[in-house]
Amino acid sequence: MFKVTFRFESGEAVETFATSGENLLEVARKTNVAIDAPCSGNASCGKCRVKLVGGELESKKTRHITDEEYEQGWRLACVSTIEADVEVMVPDIASAYRSRMKVADLSSPDEVAIFEKTKQGLEDAGISLHNSLRTVRVSMAVPTLDDTMPDNERLTRALKKELNTEVVSLPYYVMRRLPDVLRASNFEVQCVIRTAANGHVFVYDVYEKDADVVIGGLAVDIGTTTVSGLIINMETGEIIGKASSGNGQIRYGADVINRIIESTKPGGQERLQDAVIQETINPMIEHMCRASGFDPKHIYRMCVAGNTTMNHLFSGINADHLRMEPYIPAFFKTNSFFASDLDIHINPDAHIIVAPNIGSYVGGDITAGTLVSMVWNRPEFSLFIDLGTNGELVFGNSDFMMSCACSAGPAFEGGDISCGMRATDGAIEACVIDKDTMEPTFEIIGEAGVKPVGLCGSGIIDVISELYQCGIINPKGKFIREGKRVRHDKYGMGSYVLVFQEDADSVKDIEITEVDIDNFIRAKGAIFSAIRTMLASLDFDITMVEDIYVAGGIGSGINMRNAINIGMLPDIPLEKIHYIGNSSLSGAYAMLLSTEAEKKTYEVASNMTYMELSAVPTYMDEFVASCFIPHTDNTLFPSVTLK
Amino acid sequence: MFKVTFRFESGEAVETFATSGENLLEVARKTNVAIDAPCSGNASCGKCRVKLVGGELESKKTRHITDEEYEQGWRLACVSTIEADVEVMVPDIASAYRSRMKVADLSSPDEVAIFEKTKQGLEDAGISLHNSLRTVRVSMAVPTLDDTMPDNERLTRALKKELNTEVVSLPYYVMRRLPDVLRASNFEVQCVIRTAANGHVFVYDVYEKDADVVIGGLAVDIGTTTVSGLIINMETGEIIGKASSGNGQIRYGADVINRIIESTKPGGQERLQDAVIQETINPMIEHMCRASGFDPKHIYRMCVAGNTTMNHLFSGINADHLRMEPYIPAFFKTNSFFASDLDIHINPDAHIIVAPNIGSYVGGDITAGTLVSMVWNRPEFSLFIDLGTNGELVFGNSDFMMSCACSAGPAFEGGDISCGMRATDGAIEACVIDKDTMEPTFEIIGEAGVKPVGLCGSGIIDVISELYQCGIINPKGKFIREGKRVRHDKYGMGSYVLVFQEDADSVKDIEITEVDIDNFIRAKGAIFSAIRTMLASLDFDITMVEDIYVAGGIGSGINMRNAINIGMLPDIPLEKIHYIGNSSLSGAYAMLLSTEAEKKTYEVASNMTYMELSAVPTYMDEFVASCFIPHTDNTLFPSVTLK
Repeated sequence: MFKVTFRFESGEAVETFATSGENLLEVARKTNVAIDAPCSGNASCGKCRVKLVGGELESKKTRHITDEEYEQGWRLACVSTIEADVEVMVPDIASAYRSRMKVADLSSPDEVAIFEKTKQGLEDAGISLHNSLRTVRVSMAVPTLDDTMPDNERLTRALKKELNTEVVSLPYYVMRRLPDVLRASNFEVQCVIRTAANGHVFVYDVYEKDADVVIGGLAVDIGTTTVSGLIINMETGEIIGKASSGNGQIRYGADVINRIIESTKPGGQERLQDAVIQETINPMIEHMCRASGFDPKHIYRMCVAGNTTMNHLFSGINADHLRMEPYIPAFFKTNSFFASDLDIHINPDAHIIVAPNIGSYVGGDITAGTLVSMVWNRPEFSLFIDLGTNGELVFGNSDFMMSCACSAGPAFEGGDISCGMRATDGAIEACVIDKDTMEPTFEIIGEAGVKPVGLCGSGIIDVISELYQCGIINPKGKFIREGKRVRHDKYGMGSYVLVFQEDADSVKDIEITEVDIDNFIRAKGAIFSAIRTMLASLDFDITMVEDIYVAGGIGSGINMRNAINIGMLPDIPLEKIHYIGNSSLSGAYAMLLSTEAEKKTYEVASNMTYMELSAVPTYMDEFVASCFIPHTDNTLFPSVTLK
Repeated sequence: MFKVTFRFESGEAVETFATSGENLLEVARKTNVAIDAPCSGNASCGKCRVKLVGGELESKKTRHITDEEYEQGWRLACVSTIEADVEVMVPDIASAYRSRMKVADLSSPDEVAIFEKTKQGLEDAGISLHNSLRTVRVSMAVPTLDDTMPDNERLTRALKKELNTEVVSLPYYVMRRLPDVLRASNFEVQCVIRTAANGHVFVYDVYEKDADVVIGGLAVDIGTTTVSGLIINMETGEIIGKASSGNGQIRYGADVINRIIESTKPGGQERLQDAVIQETINPMIEHMCRASGFDPKHIYRMCVAGNTTMNHLFSGINADHLRMEPYIPAFFKTNSFFASDLDIHINPDAHIIVAPNIGSYVGGDITAGTLVSMVWNRPEFSLFIDLGTNGELVFGNSDFMMSCACSAGPAFEGGDISCGMRATDGAIEACVIDKDTMEPTFEIIGEAGVKPVGLCGSGIIDVISELYQCGIINPKGKFIREGKRVRHDKYGMGSYVLVFQEDADSVKDIEITEVDIDNFIRAKGAIFSAIRTMLASLDFDITMVEDIYVAGGIGSGINMRNAINIGMLPDIPLEKIHYIGNSSLSGAYAMLLSTEAEKKTYEVASNMTYMELSAVPTYMDEFVASCFIPHTDNTLFPSVTLK
């Protein structure tokens, strides 16, 4: 046995023992040390970097580590094996594409505008913003020696009378609080209740008469790469807290397939579930509640939107059948989950609504997103695109809707890109390159003067578009001009330096490589070919698309002109393309706030047909043709010109 | 700070630190070291013995420790204070009146006879033995690429069709098991379901098609002193497991008042709840399941019968209001509790039925007991007596029923008796004393040749009756004959040695002292005076009582003749007095097995009036008059003669 020490930038360390020949990444996983491995240890992503600081480590050299870096001690954990005692430094930045928990500043109108818009959209469509939770005040006779009715019966009777109902349920949580609250408040209390369709009343909580009761709700978008959450006031729709974070499951693989495989290993289901709930969602709830001074026990309902795999891994239910013929999920819709089942740190009786999946690869993120895209409410033909790790499309109108999914990979959220990151502080979200000097100028997310950290999705689109427009790369994404910012490594791989290290908040230059560009071209190609294939199957031409609604964590700074320039979106007039932000989250918000919106989502889901792209013989050809800038068939992009 | 070491007979030790002047019993409690203190630290019971084995301890001398014992190092923890580093030995036998967990041998017909009788009684009264749980077998189409319905919908649809119902609920527990069970069993499964009155179906579990499904139920009688449990087959009523154990709460006080007081201290509710659930009920479940090879997750319903305080402490609900005017419980009836709420290690969705309380001092043990006593089903006037730590009485017939409660203390179960123990292996359960030689002969519970350990309730009745009949003690319980077995300590307190230490499985002689006799006389006096007071209030004479049903953990060996001799039971013909065993447990069994029996119990509870004895001015006089053997008014006991 050899001693393996993982040291963190904070100075903390974790020690464990491993046998000769054990893989370092596996050792880290067993020891619960978080090392990113989006490719799940295939040496293809280059993210699982560690720095050898003591002892010895057997490591293969790969293209992801330069000679200089190797000299400095950098190794990929996935190609390193234990042959002696060893101590490695694990970079903090390794975690979830450098994405720490980020609690939104709600004083910024940008953060809440989308939810105001969601509410407006629902109301315009005639959907009431009402839900089944509310507060009711009841007053009871104070018990005496002649009136010795027990507490639960006293409250139940008062509620039955007040609400004119036959059935009132008090859960254990309320029973425990009841004796003290009744007496502290002289038998006049406020109850948070839900009235079911049949008139039965469920009591979630009991408060003293003077308490300022806010009925909290929690909306969570579980993306494969990014998890976003909201705490809302269920009566007004007001946003109480907002946060986002990398999905803690990332260290088990960047895509759903790798995560499913990991979940089938012993203890895997629990590990994957813990990674998203205990390491991601619960801390997010805690941060939001701390920032807003809200008691998490006052969150009485939760709505989750995520793709089908995320829903299964979140609920700890075997997801393996999703990836094996005939691809059967355990559930599309379910009302089986409560907060206490999943150990989510809110009120234990909080019901967890799950935005419905409609297929193994089109999930609740899309049905919730489709709800707020309003595609279902317009006579015009619209295309809804969710640029997630899985790219999903919905095309249709108020008469019909068709959906499909393609595997884009995490590039839109900064994954699989060497200097990629989520659209959060320090991300280059927009870029212009001077054709002559090849010098770039940027817009960076965050306060004025913040140093750039990396590139988010919208920034990558700009960079690739600009590089192409300036003739620095060719349609295949290979470098064809030279300059001080263009480099070639010893394997001949070109790259463009956006920010030299001295100007960056980074341990190395921020650059984009041919591998990055290739990854991104494949991502955008997957989307564009999916659009073409789905429309073709319906005998629609791209020009017949009236409006495009683009959603996803690519960043609100997305430049649609550049997205067309690189051949990612169809070449239609710019004013017809709308960025609607994280529609999965705003859809979850809508389902939480409005019972009618929740019902509408189920209706949308059941009316939507699903097209399996892999079953369409022409899809692969379309994909290959789309893996160019902008496309092999330039007539599809008449508006695209060079600088 | 001084170091305090608690050493156990097993050799294990627990160390902690205490400040000068801290009480040793309090230190033990804080450190979670179990030391019996039925009197809750008032130096009155003498149970909290520890042996000083190192260091120093400031201790008061009390009558509970002889000079010789003091010399050996024995101290009462409750009168000891820390003034230096100290190490004490905590006797294992201190725990819960020497009562370890005891799993019954079900091959003995005695162990199950009472439940057969309970079933027969219910059937004779026209009560169906049916409950709402059953197994249903469903077969589904195996999914294909053309039939991709998710698992939950597939099962739900099949059940709806099979059961002709509109609503089928699958809880989280079933959802997690579903994908694997369906596939392991080729989509033909067995489900354990409950059909509610409105036809809605709840699925508790899903099994493979060839599994041998037994629907388990758990009945628990939570006595103040003793907890008893049964695992049953919910379809046949068969007893799968049976066990009893001391209530782990005993170290926080012998009676309900001391426990309530303890529960109001910081963390007290949790400590009392843990003591009965984690330390008593869960280990009991584990033992029963291990002995019978039954999976505790296959227990889908639980019924609890206990007094009102026990019900509150069990559920972790503030019990303090039970002891303060106007004595209002949090609940009489409740359907708010599920196994997962209380962390009871059975199926998490198991509903916990609670036998209804009818007052702060007449609880579910009595309503459940009354059910199986069948008092409510007979035209004759019967008296039902439960000889628990609280003595409870029900008098009436099929037209009316009245109940009352009196505080008897734990003497009937061997508590507050120096050599007392529960009616389990090693207990002297019957005794005859030769008038001339004063030599005793015994019956001892357990295998032939087992050495006596102590005295259970029925044994104490016999001993006191025999001592009185032989003229060894007078009507006040004082020793009036001398002999080799009669002793007097230096305070003049007399005692009678039943078994010398060399013949006993005990660290000292098994004897009965005047203090023990006095404790028992007060217990029997409380019962008899309660009977007299209640009957008098109804203008009934004792001779009008047609039948007496005696229940409780006093032991099946109870000699009714001797119980009359000491003035505990009314002097009516012996054939009219029936011992019905632990009626709280058999009542819980009945409620578990039969939905009609459950309903009948609620009906019995709501039809029963409650009489508060303390509000009757003559009760105290009756009590004082009853604290003699047999009574101050010997005309009440015409059949009692001396040997």
